[in-house]
Amino acid sequence: MLILAVLARRQKVWDGLKGVPGLLSPVNFLDHTQHKGLSVAVFGVLFCKIFGLALAPNPLPFTKDTQYKEYWLILALFYYPALYYPLLACGTLHNKVGYVLGSLLSWTHFGVLVWQKVDCPKTPQIYKYHALFSSLPQIACLAFLSFQYPLLLFKGLKGTEKSNDLKSSYYRDYVKKILKKKKASKARSDGVSCVYICKASVFWVTAVRPLHCIVICHSPMLSQMALLLFTGVVPTLQIVRRGVDEDIAFLLAGFNIILSDDRKEVVKIVVHYMWCVEVCYVSAVTLCCLVNLAMFMSSMILHRSNLRGLYRGDIYNVYNCQRSIRPSRPALVCWMGYTSYQAAFICLGMIIQTLVFFICLLFFVFLIIIPIFYGKNLMLFHVIGRMWPFWLMLFLAVLMQHLTSRFLFIKKEAGTRDLTNRGSLFLLTYLLFPVNVLVGMLLGIWRLVITALFNIIHFGRIDISLLNRSVEAFDPGYRCYAHYLKIEVSQSHPVMKAFCGLLLQSPGQDKGSGQAARDAEEGIQLVSQDKKQNKVSNGKRARGHWHLLYTLVNNPSLVGSRKHFQRQSSESFINGTLNRSSKEESKNEGNTTEASKEAEGAASN
Amino acid sequence: MLILAVLARRQKVWDGLKGVPGLLSPVNFLDHTQHKGLSVAVFGVLFCKIFGLALAPNPLPFTKDTQYKEYWLILALFYYPALYYPLLACGTLHNKVGYVLGSLLSWTHFGVLVWQKVDCPKTPQIYKYHALFSSLPQIACLAFLSFQYPLLLFKGLKGTEKSNDLKSSYYRDYVKKILKKKKASKARSDGVSCVYICKASVFWVTAVRPLHCIVICHSPMLSQMALLLFTGVVPTLQIVRRGVDEDIAFLLAGFNIILSDDRKEVVKIVVHYMWCVEVCYVSAVTLCCLVNLAMFMSSMILHRSNLRGLYRGDIYNVYNCQRSIRPSRPALVCWMGYTSYQAAFICLGMIIQTLVFFICLLFFVFLIIIPIFYGKNLMLFHVIGRMWPFWLMLFLAVLMQHLTSRFLFIKKEAGTRDLTNRGSLFLLTYLLFPVNVLVGMLLGIWRLVITALFNIIHFGRIDISLLNRSVEAFDPGYRCYAHYLKIEVSQSHPVMKAFCGLLLQSPGQDKGSGQAARDAEEGIQLVSQDKKQNKVSNGKRARGHWHLLYTLVNNPSLVGSRKHFQRQSSESFINGTLNRSSKEESKNEGNTTEASKEAEGAASN
Repeated sequence: MLILAVLARRQKVWDGLKGVPGLLSPVNFLDHTQHKGLSVAVFGVLFCKIFGLALAPNPLPFTKDTQYKEYWLILALFYYPALYYPLLACGTLHNKVGYVLGSLLSWTHFGVLVWQKVDCPKTPQIYKYHALFSSLPQIACLAFLSFQYPLLLFKGLKGTEKSNDLKSSYYRDYVKKILKKKKASKARSDGVSCVYICKASVFWVTAVRPLHCIVICHSPMLSQMALLLFTGVVPTLQIVRRGVDEDIAFLLAGFNIILSDDRKEVVKIVVHYMWCVEVCYVSAVTLCCLVNLAMFMSSMILHRSNLRGLYRGDIYNVYNCQRSIRPSRPALVCWMGYTSYQAAFICLGMIIQTLVFFICLLFFVFLIIIPIFYGKNLMLFHVIGRMWPFWLMLFLAVLMQHLTSRFLFIKKEAGTRDLTNRGSLFLLTYLLFPVNVLVGMLLGIWRLVITALFNIIHFGRIDISLLNRSVEAFDPGYRCYAHYLKIEVSQSHPVMKAFCGLLLQSPGQDKGSGQAARDAEEGIQLVSQDKKQNKVSNGKRARGHWHLLYTLVNNPSLVGSRKHFQRQSSESFINGTLNRSSKEESKNEGNTTEASKEAEGAASN
Repeated sequence: MLILAVLARRQKVWDGLKGVPGLLSPVNFLDHTQHKGLSVAVFGVLFCKIFGLALAPNPLPFTKDTQYKEYWLILALFYYPALYYPLLACGTLHNKVGYVLGSLLSWTHFGVLVWQKVDCPKTPQIYKYHALFSSLPQIACLAFLSFQYPLLLFKGLKGTEKSNDLKSSYYRDYVKKILKKKKASKARSDGVSCVYICKASVFWVTAVRPLHCIVICHSPMLSQMALLLFTGVVPTLQIVRRGVDEDIAFLLAGFNIILSDDRKEVVKIVVHYMWCVEVCYVSAVTLCCLVNLAMFMSSMILHRSNLRGLYRGDIYNVYNCQRSIRPSRPALVCWMGYTSYQAAFICLGMIIQTLVFFICLLFFVFLIIIPIFYGKNLMLFHVIGRMWPFWLMLFLAVLMQHLTSRFLFIKKEAGTRDLTNRGSLFLLTYLLFPVNVLVGMLLGIWRLVITALFNIIHFGRIDISLLNRSVEAFDPGYRCYAHYLKIEVSQSHPVMKAFCGLLLQSPGQDKGSGQAARDAEEGIQLVSQDKKQNKVSNGKRARGHWHLLYTLVNNPSLVGSRKHFQRQSSESFINGTLNRSSKEESKNEGNTTEASKEAEGAASN
């Protein structure tokens, strides 16, 4: 496969388009216009492979050595990414030979895997069909690749394929929509709801794209974990259940548990209880999957609103503190690890969730459902029943406090509220102190339960912090996400990308006044609609200035190579202006329009 | 004791000062100028008593009926507050007879309790001296009362006692300090640090007062819980340790645990291990107490800054959302339960903390300390040692990512940072995906540990939410605190109180131009220093307007009884003005001065 890749590289050099960097860099992960299906599928294959590594007896296919297994395991962690790399690299070349090679490679991988599974569907690990089931997501990803490469080849032959990020119309459409929205909102400032709907739909279109990658990436993880949780426990439980015979009565009698005098009755009861445990476990796994799906949906919504906020420069609302959105060492490390950490957190979260849900369901079934249905072992109900005067007292005390607060201590007059009957209020506060301590105990238990439950359910989500707002950054998951967002926003701001695309297009078509020039013209016309009556020379100079300023702001390193350059002063001027304006903006949200904010957000990158 | 209270009431009626409300309302809990020692001591006594209720065989002293114990227990919850109420009420009357009765009552309570404990120091519950130890805080509180009442009587005889909240100079001093600070900051706007120190010190003086009540209230809770945790376990452990004999070797052999061939050796080892467990437990309880003290200190600091923020109107910073600071039904219920909930949360938190710390310390001692000292059972070290290539790989991978991010992928030029070598970055991201999943697993475990530890340590603090910032209000503890703050701020804003005091004083001393008038004059001069050159009549009219506006803003119900009154318009005008100004203020912090903010904060109540 490596030889094929080298062939592809020679092909490239021969074509004279690009050199080595093209092959050694996989898909641009920061580009949201390209079709990411290829990379997502390869990541899925890789994840399934390394997930199976921990369980496999031989981590590498070419060695059976069990003495140095840990070393082979470490080697495997680097071997498999290298093995599947050509699958990714063939798509990066953006030429027909690459696609042909990619098709061949993916067909080979797909064929080998399917043949392997058909040839030997059963394995001794965990559950006889576990290896077969766990390879299904991998087979699906490979099938997707086998279909995608020929499709790309066909598109390449037809010439409809777009190779460059900046040439894509995605960003230009985004900017146009924002500018149009501004115009629309200017035209009818009353139709707020209409503008809002428009805004929402634009955002849906623009921000869903980077996310569908995560969607597809999630499914192999979820399915792998759910499969492991399921096949690791349920078959064993079933075997144990089938194996229950009359000896179990003696065994239980040894522990002083006598369920019934009849041995057959005992077997029946034990089998029934084990079936209940099994049902609880299956429900727990299902619940865990559903919770993770729901969490993932809400995570998507939050991520979209975070991106949207940061594109506009609302840094405070997203991070709860002021931060500079620029690449830094920790941010880059977090960006590199983001997908992996997310995968690991979901796996760990699913294990914890299944465990907790299973225990809760067991308690629920054995302390509430079964006692109600069979009318025995009603311990919990007896305890609660005996304490009824206590519950009644607490309820009455709380009710009294609410009623007196509502009708006795709060005086509504002329639209305002104030305290009245202060003496009685203080007296009641004093007299109910002991009762309120007991209420506080219940509230404390509720606090414990809700905190634990919230944190367990949200464990797999790294876009929210599980800690208090003042110490959010100590949560490693949230810290990673916060840094990841920084890189994403600073490197792929749609307005910035659209402008870069415009700049790249203009030199080639300056004299021809083609489509690109018209697009640029249109953008500028939309920005400065009111300056249309000025002379053409004036307009040209203004456009030049605008281009220059934007270029310098986006690439401050160019400032050094300008005429009449004084480094400190100009730099501090630019930074100062940007900081000031972004600060003002984040405070006077209502005054500035969407479009100018977006532009500012782009500029601050 | 009730007869004594009725006598005191008759005394009151005879004096012609106040009627029944004076006796039926204990100390004003919303007033921060009065000496709160009395009420805090009574609350301490009450808390100790009801804490002992759960353990006592007879909840009420006059019945030995064990059949309906739960009913007696419920009765006791109301009996004890009533029993100790006269202790509180005697101080409320603010006259000599009340103090005499209070002295007699507290001496009686103190004497009875001390005599009881001297007569019968040992009880069968938990630990023979538990009842004695647990009554020590109660005795201390009663001793404080026995000392305080005669002191108040002495002060009353000398006439140095202040009876009214609004007559106290506390609030006026506060306002004066703020106004002076404004003047000082105007005079030298450069000396920011000086102003800041001054501000901090003013705030220390003004805000510590309402808090010292909580300080004293905390100590009985902490001591009671620590005592219970200590005496509930340690004596039992000591008895078990003393009772270990050579039979333990057979018992352990029954479980297939053979510590040594020599039986005496086995006894020695078991005794040593039990001693270790005891040390762990005592350390856990101590650690728990220290953690709670530290939490309490930081809670005080946070409460101070919250109060300070709300006095100025920085609602968003405190609550993380905009809320109206006015009394409402839930707010009042939470205010009534605040102390009780805090007490319950601390108790529950201490139990959980002790348990968790104990388990952690046990693991630490038996898996790390003892193996290192004795050189056996080095399981953990063997496991870690066998996995060293794995740890090394993870460390190297993380190090490599950091180093390459620092030196290869981030380009610093002309003061800005940008990404470079994108191809290699994407390649590295892809190749390190499997390794990063493992790093993510470790981070996930760290997330689990740090979240659990943070929440367990902060369980007793209700001034911070244990949930994420977007769902803070679901935490019942934090919800209670947030509502409590509302009532505190809306009912006892220092500037409002100072102004009310001023209003109450002026009618009596209008013609005499006494101290109060001079104070008022001084305040107004400070506020409008630049208007000094106006005529005296002008100044008087301005003062009148100021008084009027302030009165109307603080008591909007009065608006209805004014001449030329149009309800909707004026109300909406006032609300609108206030809302607008408070919003503007919270955004343009740097522009408005401290004093005007404080005034605005007061006005919005």
